[in-house]
Amino acid sequence: MGVRTPKQFCRVLERPLISYTLQAMERVCWIKDIVVTVTGENMEAMRSIIQRYGHKRISLAEAGATRHRSIFNGLKALAEDQPDSKLTKPEVVIIHDAVRPFVEEDILLRVVLAAKEHGAAGAIRPLVSTVVSPSADGHLDHSLDRAKHRASEMPQAFLFDVIYEAYQQCSDFDLEFGTECLQLALKYCHRKAKLVEGSPDLWKVTYKQDLCAAEAMIKEKISQEICVVTNTKDEESVGHLLEEVLRNELNCIKVASSDSQETRKLLSILEESSLPLLYPIVVVLVHCFDFTSVPLAQRMESLVWIRELAKKVKGRNILLSGLLLNYSQDEWKLQESLEQSAAIIAALVKERNSALAGQLLVA
Amino acid sequence: MGVRTPKQFCRVLERPLISYTLQAMERVCWIKDIVVTVTGENMEAMRSIIQRYGHKRISLAEAGATRHRSIFNGLKALAEDQPDSKLTKPEVVIIHDAVRPFVEEDILLRVVLAAKEHGAAGAIRPLVSTVVSPSADGHLDHSLDRAKHRASEMPQAFLFDVIYEAYQQCSDFDLEFGTECLQLALKYCHRKAKLVEGSPDLWKVTYKQDLCAAEAMIKEKISQEICVVTNTKDEESVGHLLEEVLRNELNCIKVASSDSQETRKLLSILEESSLPLLYPIVVVLVHCFDFTSVPLAQRMESLVWIRELAKKVKGRNILLSGLLLNYSQDEWKLQESLEQSAAIIAALVKERNSALAGQLLVA
Repeated sequence: MGVRTPKQFCRVLERPLISYTLQAMERVCWIKDIVVTVTGENMEAMRSIIQRYGHKRISLAEAGATRHRSIFNGLKALAEDQPDSKLTKPEVVIIHDAVRPFVEEDILLRVVLAAKEHGAAGAIRPLVSTVVSPSADGHLDHSLDRAKHRASEMPQAFLFDVIYEAYQQCSDFDLEFGTECLQLALKYCHRKAKLVEGSPDLWKVTYKQDLCAAEAMIKEKISQEICVVTNTKDEESVGHLLEEVLRNELNCIKVASSDSQETRKLLSILEESSLPLLYPIVVVLVHCFDFTSVPLAQRMESLVWIRELAKKVKGRNILLSGLLLNYSQDEWKLQESLEQSAAIIAALVKERNSALAGQLLVA
Repeated sequence: MGVRTPKQFCRVLERPLISYTLQAMERVCWIKDIVVTVTGENMEAMRSIIQRYGHKRISLAEAGATRHRSIFNGLKALAEDQPDSKLTKPEVVIIHDAVRPFVEEDILLRVVLAAKEHGAAGAIRPLVSTVVSPSADGHLDHSLDRAKHRASEMPQAFLFDVIYEAYQQCSDFDLEFGTECLQLALKYCHRKAKLVEGSPDLWKVTYKQDLCAAEAMIKEKISQEICVVTNTKDEESVGHLLEEVLRNELNCIKVASSDSQETRKLLSILEESSLPLLYPIVVVLVHCFDFTSVPLAQRMESLVWIRELAKKVKGRNILLSGLLLNYSQDEWKLQESLEQSAAIIAALVKERNSALAGQLLVA
């Protein structure tokens, strides 16, 4: 990736990538324990991530010098025959990468069920590129038939006894140079893993473009549910109109009416919740009034408190903005303002850029 | 990708992906002709893309039902023995995908030079995932050694006579089910292609996350050069200070001083240039003054022309915003305002979101 930070600790919306992956696992109620293997030098960083983001059910094990040695250490933490094992040996164990944060419960369930039946199972995807075999001098020796091969992805699942035995028996050469757990189960336990077709979401954050993509996907995911607060207690209809127009830009919308005091209450509740720890929360205060009745500048001056309040809550990862909507008698002007408001709200919610918090925007 | 639009026509910053790839090719002065194969139903769309974005050196050929048939048609357009060939037969031909817009001149040159020497050459990348071979019933048959295999990417280059002969000789089965041009050169012309290590940028836009990544990468690329316009003719120092602080956020900065008339001139020049056709252009007008000397609301009222002007130029893909910077006597306040200005400018430039154009922002 061209950065010194290990990929799993790279930040997406200010939060380390691995925290998203842990969250994806924690959401699944039937996963009993989660073991994370971490190198000694990153152990403290990992501990503070677990604490900061309130992760549960996590145990740490020391990572080894290679992928297979790390996985083996993780399995030992779950095995009963090890002196330092504190966890109960599970029937089935899932092996997953910290850099695949988009794993869904569905694929986890499918590999686990397949592992219970066949001893081993793993997610696969069609190949994106043809695979070639180079000769020693860097020329094409042969190319593989794309239709007959698949990319082996994560998650994979195993009967614990099968994969643990495979690791106990496997050679130093395998531990050093191997990359595929399914292959170990085949070689040492003669279990032909069931291959389960996964979704494109399983992709692995490997290069810089993947980190960009991960951020965009997470932003899109968290922008599905929003709540917009307006000052239109008396003019309920604007709230409904805005809700209608917003539906074109975002999926699930709720527009609530509120005055400044209620807004402060809402912000306090948000501040005290764990939500802004996980993502920056966008709050847009929409002020509806007829621009011809009150001069815009005057109204903006009366809303300076939004700037001040925004500064205060920004430190808690809440991005507050004010929006002035022209509740005009002229239907055409009103419609224009509604549409522009919807576009601005959608932009603020989708971009989630803290530099743009605290502004008074005009539609 | 889960969308009906063919991937190469998907829009990135409102412009079809293929237009970026064509631009990447056109930038290379030693590429003489560019042949694009297009299906009959997309021919008109492709013609209008070429016209709209001013692409040069492009010829169109009809795509076939499979990848290989399309490439063959493209080669025929360049061959002298074909009745409808209008182009001159080249010595070397490059084959590339429309969905790999980040190809650089360096890798094009390297595959072309290797093709001149070896008859065929192609870019390769290390495998991201292990490749497995499934049995007929969907179980693991064997896994391939990741160290001994590579992903075959694009661009590829060939001596024209070599690849054209390969396509002329190749079987219907190859034309129907094959995916690898290097393999055809090997099978029918006994040319062992030189494999050239490429950069991660060569990745292929395949899934939704790739489109997100492409947009982020393009935004980053075009945000490397910016020009900020301030009103500080008399107070040159603010311009310099802002330039300094902006360097932390963006790479190459030039801060120019200008009044409203000069700004209109600059906008006219931009409007008439071809730049806003290729990307949305962000222009930020920074107004520096001491917030204690003039009330903010009053100053904002005097800058309403920015909103009006922004509306006008938005249709031409120019995103104009105003920014009020507190040129305070208090050094600490000035520094705070400078840093916030830099963050806001960086956000506007990086996000390039048209919904946020036309606003007067305050730092």
